Amino acid sequence: MKESGIGSHKIIRRKRDGGLEYLPDELTIEEPLEICIGRKPIATTMRTPGHDEELAAGFLLSEGLVHGREQIASVSVSGDSRVVVELNHGVKFKLNSTQRFGTISSSCGLCGKTSIDAIRQNFPAIRSTDIRIDIETLLSLPDKLRNAQSDFARTGGIHAAGIFGVDGQLEIAREDIGRHNAVDKAVGRAFLNGLLPLERHLLLVSGRASFEIIQKALVAGIPIVAAVSAPSSLAVELARDSNQTLIGFLRPPSFNIYSHIERVILQDSSARCRSQRPRL
Amino acid sequence: MKESGIGSHKIIRRKRDGGLEYLPDELTIEEPLEICIGRKPIATTMRTPGHDEELAAGFLLSEGLVHGREQIASVSVSGDSRVVVELNHGVKFKLNSTQRFGTISSSCGLCGKTSIDAIRQNFPAIRSTDIRIDIETLLSLPDKLRNAQSDFARTGGIHAAGIFGVDGQLEIAREDIGRHNAVDKAVGRAFLNGLLPLERHLLLVSGRASFEIIQKALVAGIPIVAAVSAPSSLAVELARDSNQTLIGFLRPPSFNIYSHIERVILQDSSARCRSQRPRL
Repeated sequence: MKESGIGSHKIIRRKRDGGLEYLPDELTIEEPLEICIGRKPIATTMRTPGHDEELAAGFLLSEGLVHGREQIASVSVSGDSRVVVELNHGVKFKLNSTQRFGTISSSCGLCGKTSIDAIRQNFPAIRSTDIRIDIETLLSLPDKLRNAQSDFARTGGIHAAGIFGVDGQLEIAREDIGRHNAVDKAVGRAFLNGLLPLERHLLLVSGRASFEIIQKALVAGIPIVAAVSAPSSLAVELARDSNQTLIGFLRPPSFNIYSHIERVILQDSSARCRSQRPRL
Repeated sequence: MKESGIGSHKIIRRKRDGGLEYLPDELTIEEPLEICIGRKPIATTMRTPGHDEELAAGFLLSEGLVHGREQIASVSVSGDSRVVVELNHGVKFKLNSTQRFGTISSSCGLCGKTSIDAIRQNFPAIRSTDIRIDIETLLSLPDKLRNAQSDFARTGGIHAAGIFGVDGQLEIAREDIGRHNAVDKAVGRAFLNGLLPLERHLLLVSGRASFEIIQKALVAGIPIVAAVSAPSSLAVELARDSNQTLIGFLRPPSFNIYSHIERVILQDSSARCRSQRPRL
């Protein structure tokens, strides 16, 4: 992910020893990208440049504007601030009242919506399958995602999203100044490659799990979502409703499971014997 | 800030020793709030309940819909999901093309805007004064803000914003699941109290400094913004343009200064002698 946009500015740093130094600093670039379907601008989002085609595809998918890979004829970047999605002949899209987008912040995933219920009604719950992940695999994921990031990213200036197989294999990793953009890019790549639904996969995000992160995983058919930080109450509610396993505070050796624990193989057999595992 | 909304859910936790336990978990509540001017809905924002009047006032102010305290007749909460702002007789407001709000995510501050330039043109730069902050005071601020937060908040599930005097006195502290909401609440309180512009104050945020955080500080007339994490490139650009001092990665004993260093009293005299301090 070394291609993520990093700018260079001169700053002053106070060092740990109290001394001062002048140095160039790497800043995470945050620039607007206009997403168009044909000639129609759909939204402008603040994002870190790079993987813009994926971002556009993932955005249109998670907003319900496109549903299948076959609907998209092409995705092309125009200049450094516009991406154009051409739909195949005969494919219609319609912006309804819940889809009036203006400019969207790099940290926003719900912009322009007038109804949260609309999101929840647009996408069916994940179907139950036999996929499971074991604890050791789960605990190995944060390091794998961090190792795929650039040095700067690890300092916390940028968010990362990784799509893993339930065997722990990192398949797609993307980063962006916006949490939801990183997820759109990762999901967008899988979507463009025709890999959806990701029924045997897990989405890991480097920060918090908000409602929109769960939504984007749901759209991609991902049954397990893990976050390094806290989930929000709405995120937990949506995950429970949509048959998704939600793991928060994934900081080895600890983590919390907020919903659908049945997909986690809890190897601590003594704990399993002490009590029945409820459906959360 | 104990009144911030915290929900209670049952979750499973894997402990550091590998054992499992079932426990209630505190989740940061994220619920929609409709902001109305009179009978007209202006926006719906996802926020952590509490201080909703301040959130509404801060939001309308930073969006340029109101400009002075005297324009507001009353702010009242209606039920648990609506706040109504009544303007004084004769006060008009108009939503222009950059102000079409739908539902706004808890992590979004730019929703509905069609132009970033519009934001930058709406608000004049901070005027230059003699206010300064010394390093020791600056380094003391993160602890003061954390001490004002609830236990859970300190774990990272919620963002905090604090308005300090340049003497280091914490004057207003607010928290919310959304970074920009925490700032809106803090600025909204000061606005409703008739304290703007906050020309001798500093805004500290517990997370990253994005463009919209700088914008909100600018609207409130705050000359110094500090963030515990990274600033974005646009945040630095806006701070430089608007005569604001921007400090990032404020993690004692270290920090970075990205703009207008002249407001920081650098007590390390040897460093000051080694080189002239440039205007960043």
